Amino acid sequence: MNGWCIRLAWEGTRYVGWQVQPNGVSIQSVCESALTCLLGGETVRLRAAGRTDAGVHARSQVVAFRCVTERDPKEIVGGLNRLLPEDIVCLSAEQVPADFEPRLWATGKTYEYFILQRDAPCPFRGRYSWHIRQALDLPAMRRAAEALTGRHDFSSFRAQGCSAAHAVRNILAITLVEEGDEIRIRFRGEAFVRHQVRIMVGTLVDVGLGRRSSQSMAVLLQAKDREQAGMTAPPHGLSLLQVDIGSAPRE
Amino acid sequence: MNGWCIRLAWEGTRYVGWQVQPNGVSIQSVCESALTCLLGGETVRLRAAGRTDAGVHARSQVVAFRCVTERDPKEIVGGLNRLLPEDIVCLSAEQVPADFEPRLWATGKTYEYFILQRDAPCPFRGRYSWHIRQALDLPAMRRAAEALTGRHDFSSFRAQGCSAAHAVRNILAITLVEEGDEIRIRFRGEAFVRHQVRIMVGTLVDVGLGRRSSQSMAVLLQAKDREQAGMTAPPHGLSLLQVDIGSAPRE
Repeated sequence: MNGWCIRLAWEGTRYVGWQVQPNGVSIQSVCESALTCLLGGETVRLRAAGRTDAGVHARSQVVAFRCVTERDPKEIVGGLNRLLPEDIVCLSAEQVPADFEPRLWATGKTYEYFILQRDAPCPFRGRYSWHIRQALDLPAMRRAAEALTGRHDFSSFRAQGCSAAHAVRNILAITLVEEGDEIRIRFRGEAFVRHQVRIMVGTLVDVGLGRRSSQSMAVLLQAKDREQAGMTAPPHGLSLLQVDIGSAPRE
Repeated sequence: MNGWCIRLAWEGTRYVGWQVQPNGVSIQSVCESALTCLLGGETVRLRAAGRTDAGVHARSQVVAFRCVTERDPKEIVGGLNRLLPEDIVCLSAEQVPADFEPRLWATGKTYEYFILQRDAPCPFRGRYSWHIRQALDLPAMRRAAEALTGRHDFSSFRAQGCSAAHAVRNILAITLVEEGDEIRIRFRGEAFVRHQVRIMVGTLVDVGLGRRSSQSMAVLLQAKDREQAGMTAPPHGLSLLQVDIGSAPRE
């Protein structure tokens, strides 16, 4: 059995998310069909480093599969890109040990949330951004982001239905960069609970609009109550930028 | 009668181009319907500073109309953006003399052609770029662009069916900028013949790939023969960036 690790990028607009679901087309199902075709009919099961929600984009997601058919990396990349629709792209492929499991080997993930701050909407960036007309107070948002950085119980920032055993996560860095009418918020962490990034963004935007103070983050973390955090920011502003893979499974 | 000048931006992917056509949805027809709705049923006719082809994008096109209904500029912009689909946006509106005619008052136009130079396609930029895998020789392309700049008879770079009386045009500047895996070619001119920018791009790419020399441009211009120029570059790489409007109709 050959183990493979591929990196995929996609524009999530048309899809129900990564995972196969009954209510629409998933990235996983489209990629599995393309691979089966490429491998001459061999059925494969793709395993990603994590789920991504409907509408969320990926600049580089790590995905694994096993197959008996022999192919070289160039054939995998070129073949997939010929078979995949325009909004899903295979960036690279490499052979890995057959026991490689992206979810367990991932040591960190970086997400970026893109806010478009201007009066008129933008027909080019609308698919990738949350359009907010009111001016955001970036220094206050940076102070709030600072308070959310580190190891905390993120129960207040966790969606209902999250299957993780607990909500303690280590956020390594949150950075806010402003360039022209674009605000980009990057979140680097070892792992995240369900909707954590989008709820953090919704809460930071509340701070940016003066609806809550940057000092209130500590109390909000202590509350461990989803009701007290901000809204879940819309999915289309979010992109998975990068997944870091270690040399062995995490403890 | 009130004269109005509005600036529109659009992503051209879904449209048959600016002009109303029997074979699909045009930007013009969508915008006229939205305006009629906004003006309480008054029928208006939009006149743009020029046509744009199917699939071509606009960052800022200048469009005029006349109406009897009274509205202020904020109502026009806000109302249109509520009524228009996400891929068409009204950027501004101002009252102008009723005899304002964008095609005749335009003193210059700037187009940008976006080439994506890398191995894998890109799911985010694919709609706006021509994906070319082979390395392009930019210095050679810049020399060829230099030879095309100025006042020339562009018959070799003119599509069949162009209705202009002649093909003499003045190209003020062609600049090639490379940034990472992106090559952007900007064309500034007083006016252009049909498909001129896209045929110039197709020809410059021939030079970049070593299929023709940068010195061959002078001969190509003299030939006045469309058959001797390069292919018409795909429309989705092209954006109308800007239209300059003078204070009176051109001579």
